[in-house]
Amino acid sequence: MEIIRSKDNKIVKELKKLKQKKYRDLTNKFLAEGIKFLDYIEYIPELIIAREDMIDNSIFLKKIKNFNTKILYLDEKIFNELSAQENSQGVIIQYQKKERNLDSISNDIIVLDDISDPGNLGTIIRVCDATNFKDIILTKGSVDAYNDKVIRASMGSILNVNLIYLDRNFIINLLVEEKYNTFITYLDKTAVSYNKIKLQNKNAIVMGNEGRGVGKDFLEILHTKTIIPILGNAESLNVAIASSLMLYKFRELQNIF
Amino acid sequence: MEIIRSKDNKIVKELKKLKQKKYRDLTNKFLAEGIKFLDYIEYIPELIIAREDMIDNSIFLKKIKNFNTKILYLDEKIFNELSAQENSQGVIIQYQKKERNLDSISNDIIVLDDISDPGNLGTIIRVCDATNFKDIILTKGSVDAYNDKVIRASMGSILNVNLIYLDRNFIINLLVEEKYNTFITYLDKTAVSYNKIKLQNKNAIVMGNEGRGVGKDFLEILHTKTIIPILGNAESLNVAIASSLMLYKFRELQNIF
Repeated sequence: MEIIRSKDNKIVKELKKLKQKKYRDLTNKFLAEGIKFLDYIEYIPELIIAREDMIDNSIFLKKIKNFNTKILYLDEKIFNELSAQENSQGVIIQYQKKERNLDSISNDIIVLDDISDPGNLGTIIRVCDATNFKDIILTKGSVDAYNDKVIRASMGSILNVNLIYLDRNFIINLLVEEKYNTFITYLDKTAVSYNKIKLQNKNAIVMGNEGRGVGKDFLEILHTKTIIPILGNAESLNVAIASSLMLYKFRELQNIF
Repeated sequence: MEIIRSKDNKIVKELKKLKQKKYRDLTNKFLAEGIKFLDYIEYIPELIIAREDMIDNSIFLKKIKNFNTKILYLDEKIFNELSAQENSQGVIIQYQKKERNLDSISNDIIVLDDISDPGNLGTIIRVCDATNFKDIILTKGSVDAYNDKVIRASMGSILNVNLIYLDRNFIINLLVEEKYNTFITYLDKTAVSYNKIKLQNKNAIVMGNEGRGVGKDFLEILHTKTIIPILGNAESLNVAIASSLMLYKFRELQNIF
């Protein structure tokens, strides 16, 4: 088994570039770190990168039997330069991003308008997976879902959902033309409580940026002003919390939970 | 107005110590950063620390009129050494921690067993405030709520709730002797759905550590095994998300929301 020990190795250089959004966009590839990703046997890795000590790690060797994918072993130093984690498990996987055909988009979708915090996005992806909202539409100003902090916070759920980055005008047209019943959260107490909203055949939740909220252009779409009630003195909720409450409420109102 | 320009200043040295949990525990004081803390006029600051340019900042000067508290101006360099934020607003406030009398503890409480991530704790505090769960009981192994990351994630809600650190045995005795109807979340599908739990007069939610879950000693208390349903392939929920869903569900079942 060959172990790469030179940081000048061409493949290692290419892999390192994938830490940058620019190269992920260019190649449609991304890296995910952690041995648990090898449990997602339906999402075939393009390349499995392992720290040299994994060569005789029985758990690792068992998991990779599910794939025909090439394994690349790196010595510890080179591996650590590629790793985004302090206490890495020694496994990084290169995937090809999924393509999503817009013709068959789900009836229940969430739209994220310029979400900027990677932890928030990762958490929202995890809850979308838990509530079976498989299509997540993001404005192009949103943080890149394939950055390592998002992937880590998503706890593997990134492989289970479709992440669809689109121009905001395109999303607005999609919501209007496809007749999505759209819900936007407000702090306005005259808005409809999220307990009492009426869902229809096609429903969209639009959640906004952490500081600025939902963009004005989205607010111009015909939509239901929705409030998640707040007692006490808290002024607002974190966007991942608000998204989760909305996603769970949808499934409850649809008698799925 | 005197501006402190020496890092050897005795008060500045004492303030810097408050970045360490040890000194916060010893003095029962903590620091909170951001001008919005001055809006919490019911929680009187012990000391207001401002960057020198705040001397003629009209918003700052207006807000401090609500207090008789001493203002300490620091030059930019000294202020930045004390600040925990990259783009500080120039205001740090020293508070005394609140004391909470255990004799009058609320009927609805949340117990956090060894929560370790500051962002999670801050987010939970924010949602406790939003749902009027004023008493938050934490095992002594939990992350310190007065660390700057928790305070920041709580978005000011830290001033609106009671944070009560206790020995785990003491908490267990409290739950049992005070006859709290206790709810612990499981991934076990035979558990009661959180939509269908029965609340009584006194109710406690126990949430566990991010990796290990709720400690065995808590599981030995008589409690309702509760499940937050999960569709899709997600294996679990982030603890702040699960806590938020439970807290909101409690208020809904109590017809408060």
